[in-house]
Amino acid sequence: MTAALFLPDLLWEPLITTALREDFGTGGDVTTQALLGHQKTLRAVFRARHHGVLAGLPGARLAFHALDGATHFTPLMAEGSTIKPGDALATVEGSAAAILGGERVALNLLSHLSGIASTTAAIVHAVEGTGVDVCCTRKTLPGLRAVQKYAVRAGGGSNHRHRLDDAIMLKDNHIALLGGTIKEALKAARERAGHLMKIELEVDALEQLEEALSCGGADAYLLDNMEPDQLRRAVSMINGRAIAEASGGITPDTARSKAETGVDVLSLGWLTHSVTALDIGLDIDA
Amino acid sequence: MTAALFLPDLLWEPLITTALREDFGTGGDVTTQALLGHQKTLRAVFRARHHGVLAGLPGARLAFHALDGATHFTPLMAEGSTIKPGDALATVEGSAAAILGGERVALNLLSHLSGIASTTAAIVHAVEGTGVDVCCTRKTLPGLRAVQKYAVRAGGGSNHRHRLDDAIMLKDNHIALLGGTIKEALKAARERAGHLMKIELEVDALEQLEEALSCGGADAYLLDNMEPDQLRRAVSMINGRAIAEASGGITPDTARSKAETGVDVLSLGWLTHSVTALDIGLDIDA
Amino acid sequence: MTAALFLPDLLWEPLITTALREDFGTGGDVTTQALLGHQKTLRAVFRARHHGVLAGLPGARLAFHALDGATHFTPLMAEGSTIKPGDALATVEGSAAAILGGERVALNLLSHLSGIASTTAAIVHAVEGTGVDVCCTRKTLPGLRAVQKYAVRAGGGSNHRHRLDDAIMLKDNHIALLGGTIKEALKAARERAGHLMKIELEVDALEQLEEALSCGGADAYLLDNMEPDQLRRAVSMINGRAIAEASGGITPDTARSKAETGVDVLSLGWLTHSVTALDIGLDIDA
Amino acid sequence: MTAALFLPDLLWEPLITTALREDFGTGGDVTTQALLGHQKTLRAVFRARHHGVLAGLPGARLAFHALDGATHFTPLMAEGSTIKPGDALATVEGSAAAILGGERVALNLLSHLSGIASTTAAIVHAVEGTGVDVCCTRKTLPGLRAVQKYAVRAGGGSNHRHRLDDAIMLKDNHIALLGGTIKEALKAARERAGHLMKIELEVDALEQLEEALSCGGADAYLLDNMEPDQLRRAVSMINGRAIAEASGGITPDTARSKAETGVDVLSLGWLTHSVTALDIGLDIDA
Amino acid sequence: MTAALFLPDLLWEPLITTALREDFGTGGDVTTQALLGHQKTLRAVFRARHHGVLAGLPGARLAFHALDGATHFTPLMAEGSTIKPGDALATVEGSAAAILGGERVALNLLSHLSGIASTTAAIVHAVEGTGVDVCCTRKTLPGLRAVQKYAVRAGGGSNHRHRLDDAIMLKDNHIALLGGTIKEALKAARERAGHLMKIELEVDALEQLEEALSCGGADAYLLDNMEPDQLRRAVSMINGRAIAEASGGITPDTARSKAETGVDVLSLGWLTHSVTALDIGLDIDA
Amino acid sequence: MTAALFLPDLLWEPLITTALREDFGTGGDVTTQALLGHQKTLRAVFRARHHGVLAGLPGARLAFHALDGATHFTPLMAEGSTIKPGDALATVEGSAAAILGGERVALNLLSHLSGIASTTAAIVHAVEGTGVDVCCTRKTLPGLRAVQKYAVRAGGGSNHRHRLDDAIMLKDNHIALLGGTIKEALKAARERAGHLMKIELEVDALEQLEEALSCGGADAYLLDNMEPDQLRRAVSMINGRAIAEASGGITPDTARSKAETGVDVLSLGWLTHSVTALDIGLDIDA
Repeated sequence: MTAALFLPDLLWEPLITTALREDFGTGGDVTTQALLGHQKTLRAVFRARHHGVLAGLPGARLAFHALDGATHFTPLMAEGSTIKPGDALATVEGSAAAILGGERVALNLLSHLSGIASTTAAIVHAVEGTGVDVCCTRKTLPGLRAVQKYAVRAGGGSNHRHRLDDAIMLKDNHIALLGGTIKEALKAARERAGHLMKIELEVDALEQLEEALSCGGADAYLLDNMEPDQLRRAVSMINGRAIAEASGGITPDTARSKAETGVDVLSLGWLTHSVTALDIGLDIDA
Repeated sequence: MTAALFLPDLLWEPLITTALREDFGTGGDVTTQALLGHQKTLRAVFRARHHGVLAGLPGARLAFHALDGATHFTPLMAEGSTIKPGDALATVEGSAAAILGGERVALNLLSHLSGIASTTAAIVHAVEGTGVDVCCTRKTLPGLRAVQKYAVRAGGGSNHRHRLDDAIMLKDNHIALLGGTIKEALKAARERAGHLMKIELEVDALEQLEEALSCGGADAYLLDNMEPDQLRRAVSMINGRAIAEASGGITPDTARSKAETGVDVLSLGWLTHSVTALDIGLDIDA
Repeated sequence: MTAALFLPDLLWEPLITTALREDFGTGGDVTTQALLGHQKTLRAVFRARHHGVLAGLPGARLAFHALDGATHFTPLMAEGSTIKPGDALATVEGSAAAILGGERVALNLLSHLSGIASTTAAIVHAVEGTGVDVCCTRKTLPGLRAVQKYAVRAGGGSNHRHRLDDAIMLKDNHIALLGGTIKEALKAARERAGHLMKIELEVDALEQLEEALSCGGADAYLLDNMEPDQLRRAVSMINGRAIAEASGGITPDTARSKAETGVDVLSLGWLTHSVTALDIGLDIDA
Repeated sequence: MTAALFLPDLLWEPLITTALREDFGTGGDVTTQALLGHQKTLRAVFRARHHGVLAGLPGARLAFHALDGATHFTPLMAEGSTIKPGDALATVEGSAAAILGGERVALNLLSHLSGIASTTAAIVHAVEGTGVDVCCTRKTLPGLRAVQKYAVRAGGGSNHRHRLDDAIMLKDNHIALLGGTIKEALKAARERAGHLMKIELEVDALEQLEEALSCGGADAYLLDNMEPDQLRRAVSMINGRAIAEASGGITPDTARSKAETGVDVLSLGWLTHSVTALDIGLDIDA
Repeated sequence: MTAALFLPDLLWEPLITTALREDFGTGGDVTTQALLGHQKTLRAVFRARHHGVLAGLPGARLAFHALDGATHFTPLMAEGSTIKPGDALATVEGSAAAILGGERVALNLLSHLSGIASTTAAIVHAVEGTGVDVCCTRKTLPGLRAVQKYAVRAGGGSNHRHRLDDAIMLKDNHIALLGGTIKEALKAARERAGHLMKIELEVDALEQLEEALSCGGADAYLLDNMEPDQLRRAVSMINGRAIAEASGGITPDTARSKAETGVDVLSLGWLTHSVTALDIGLDIDA
Repeated sequence: MTAALFLPDLLWEPLITTALREDFGTGGDVTTQALLGHQKTLRAVFRARHHGVLAGLPGARLAFHALDGATHFTPLMAEGSTIKPGDALATVEGSAAAILGGERVALNLLSHLSGIASTTAAIVHAVEGTGVDVCCTRKTLPGLRAVQKYAVRAGGGSNHRHRLDDAIMLKDNHIALLGGTIKEALKAARERAGHLMKIELEVDALEQLEEALSCGGADAYLLDNMEPDQLRRAVSMINGRAIAEASGGITPDTARSKAETGVDVLSLGWLTHSVTALDIGLDIDA
């Protein structure tokens, strides 16, 4: 695991505990209770059933561990690995009650995060060689921000703002509500921003960009819904003085043409808001 | 809102509080703080940008209410309504700090749940007239089970087990681990199940179904990954004595052919595990 | 321990943590702090002081473990065992601070749950041979539902609905508020119920039962406050087509006569709402 | 409500929220959802079905309020009131979904706490005129300590230690583990106790009491499992220099004879550990 | 209140709830319960007893509101105001039980935060005219980060990193552990940092600064424990290409001389780790 | 560690978890992620940089343990020890990610609690030989009451009320609101107080003390803001019948003269509300 993929258990645990409580209710796993003694043990293997990129094993491990501290979970591949159908990803051994009880929670999280990592990796691959960063947004699901953004990193992408307090992002609405000009908004932002906080300005027209650049500028520009031509002109106007980020309407098909405009970053909300789960199964050894 | 769409705030609140804390961190919305006075107020409209089915307004309301109890949120369309681009879904009025601060959390949840409702509705539409129930599974995201299943109902679908304790679901693994036959497994299950608890047996071959039917049977059969022909034979074998549920490989394209086999239920994990968010925006009135 | 008595620690922990925090406040166990060094260790034995059935050792273990992970707790009898005065139930060894500090919390839970198990077992014994299930209700105490229902199972009883979302239970009030007939209520319920969800109808007169049976019926009937004669007639009317559950006014004295009417289930709220704690002590070895 | 019965909502809320979440699961009240529209409203009356003392209305109110802030709850009798069958205790008006959904949680808590208050009041009545305080212990259920002790006060009783940190209670085990004499234990306790903290010594023989009194003594003595004669002698030995508390084996039958020995306090674990719920119903107005 | 002082209640509430639970335990405010009826109402005024800057009224309001939603709290001065002995800061009216019960919690938070704001303001005043930002650090108390940093803003200061995930801060240890040079560390950081994330390098010698500047540099330099002369040389070396932050050993006496060296930021851990509470009282109107 | 310094992890954990979540946000320690692999391990030593008294190592240990259960933390000095610059207090070994990630949280708590212990010890030293107890108050920070009071004990001080429910403290406001005399207030308090609960009366004039003593008196008197002469007269009036506590205006300079008046207790709010952190560092071994 590369360092960028380290998330302490502290950030996984609330998710796992919540999911297990949702699933166990107050009666627990009645099927297992009806059929199996608690002493029964087994060994099972997480196996990929599709091509993609792996993310989420630390969460899967916790799902079993939370049910029974004596289960053994052994990752067989590193987070961020490219996986193909049939690959054994991890094994888990221990009480059947814990393994059957935690299976769904583990798979739900693992296939969701691997889905994000896989899609991110596909876009990263599509823009290979352009030097562009593929970046997620704040369009995440409640409670899942830390792990969804982690999965983007696992897929080779990078993260935009983690939340509202780590950068200033000026949008149309802010400027309209301030009742002022871009210049005034940038000035107010700069006065208020902490010295380690960057300021990004959203622009959807080159005139706005021009106005911003003429008055000292922002640290980054979010170039919203622009076509490659416009993006190319924006990049040339910015001329290395700030980060150029393209956003809006970026699909697997359009990513490369947008990346080739010279922007530094492509940001895509759908990496986290419209996720296709990656098919992963848990095969129980007889 | 039909009664089936009622979820008390108690089940929405933890999600909203978690999402807002993720987004506000410890510094809050620095952009708004930098630019706007707290007294600034505004009015904004949630507007559909795509065709679909609406779900999630109760959560959106709470996002603003949690930030400022004095905001007014007015739903303009009922949960479960069919919506089209341009439709005004709800309005929110109040402090700019609360509305800009809660916007992303509200939209993230609303577009996710409306995405689920819309896809469900599309499948329900595809099987119209067959009398089949379109049903979700336990393949939900951590913490989101209540609202994802609610969204399926909003789309006209119905819910499978809510969790491990409300029905017995016998799978291959259970029977193998029990070291016994389907007959023995059903007997053990029936002895242990509460009197208001149904028992479902997963079968992937007609021989298994035959064995089960011959020994008193289950309340429902999950017919896993069967083609229409097999499903038709299974339905005929069951002959109304139990529920027939088809599962596995059901897509928008195959749903109708599977529904026409006479099964009672189609269950689809991807309704909740692979969600495409519905595009909804928040337009701020000048 | 039979499988039906498995509850993961996840469902015990919030109770134990809450109880310990209630007892330790912010100052902790001042008596132990005043008198004993932290290094002092001891060994103690949980011992029955009354006849009954054992339930709750997993919770007792957690009470000590939460205070000091190095304590050793060894169950000597299985959950659900019949116990008599003097029986050694479990031992705990470790720091005196942890054992004296957790003693009350462990005993409070253990004696409460063993009280439930013991009373349940007494009723189960009273109806022995009739084939009737002895069943608890939703009349549980806040936060204790999972463990109270577990204790009923430990005593040989079974569980009714775990909560409002796992079966439909139609009562007078529902039908009156619907403004309709039993027939309409059953029809509405059947349309809405998930395919793994049973429907039970509460009736307090045979005419209601007749009406229900004539229109397709429910999966189960709760025969409320009926005398043995009425129960016998109800059972004969139902004639095996549905579960017959007797409820209301069932005491140790009346249980057998009601069980002998042919009903399938006796349900008793007082198993969980009016519990007599079983006397269990913790004897410290010198 | 007398002041002694004031508990802020803050101490009721976690119980109510927990109980509602236990009951609603992730699907909510499916019966109400299946049958009734959310708009349906009703009015219902809490009515006593047994003689006793009322406790718990603040919790009942919160059960409905948590489900729907627009419900109106009107107490008709004060906490601690003597009630008789048929007495109207409170009314609740609002959405049927909230009232039917919260009914069981409200009744479970109300009948449990009124059960405690009623039993306490019966013992208080039995010892009337002796000047003895009837007192509960730390034998409470997980999470319920604040409300169970409140219910004891509602019944006219008083509270012992609230937890381990508000008084020092020296028992046999402490002294044995200290490896010393009562004298040494009292000395150590006095050195460590905060200046607003009392020290109580448990004694089960008069010799122990004598030893304690001879060395400066404790603030109170817990006279454990003593017969009236012994109690009388203990009281005479203490002679007003400390509180005399009788504990162990106090039943409705023996309470008066023990109270008449001159002790100051009777403490009874079963007031809270072995509670008979008071029968209270919720009648819905047509 | 200026916008920069807006923190939603969501960030205050956990603190207030925690503090009230700490103070109420399970028995509540026994003094008030013993003496006053619940109906008693009163009006009280928060009054400064010392010179300083006000911060924390939103928290004080919540302390009373959490105990009784019907209390009225009226701020009389804005957050961040300069206050002097005798100034009326806010009034609270409502039940005596709520006001006496919440008084200590409200005052504890208010006097702590006003203490931070006042000290910050004193330093801001000391460096007036130099254009230097006075900045806090991550040296905050558990659970108080959001409000302590808010109080710094109330005193006219600004905030450094809110946490570990909003900027990269390279220290000696990082570079040593990486086993590399400053150049390599900066390169690794730049590759990994999100595009809205700044990189700061801690240097305690000018040679380190030179090495860093020569290889492209960081966005900011933390000049640790440098004397004014060194700081001046560092500022001249940086020459406007990055932020210069002085840290370590900055006291009210040395602040101005350090600020006059041309650095952009002074950061002071003791603003939040060594706080002198500002004396504020609650005067109850007869 | 003396027994009085034992606090179970249960009371430390919420603080540590909260602090780590504040610091890790959703992205975690991006610096470490950018620079170091997860496998990197190190060893570090907590070292005093100032004279004082040690408190807080159990919390420091948990900070690392919560991030990585495999870290080893070894205390080298006992809680409550006198420490001097250079003293090695504890070592921690394990993954660099956990140690660098938990460092700030550990140091923040450790230096805060050692600050409290050190100041307490200084006052205890100042009054040495007078037999006076140095005592803290309820002026603590939200969430920190248990550990701040623990730190006072570590410094040789003792604790006043832990909260509102463990003693009755009658102040001017209570008596005024009761609309009565001191006599009436004491009578009401005595009737309501549990038998293990002491009653303290705050007096700021000797006439009040006289009135109280003449009517049976309280268990303790808080002599508020009195000069040594007044205190001496108060002590002589009380004459050993109750505890005499001096409060208000007690500084390192005045402590001894107040202690020598014969009072039993000095209570000082600033021990916990105005804390100067003790300088402690974490030195990483190369």
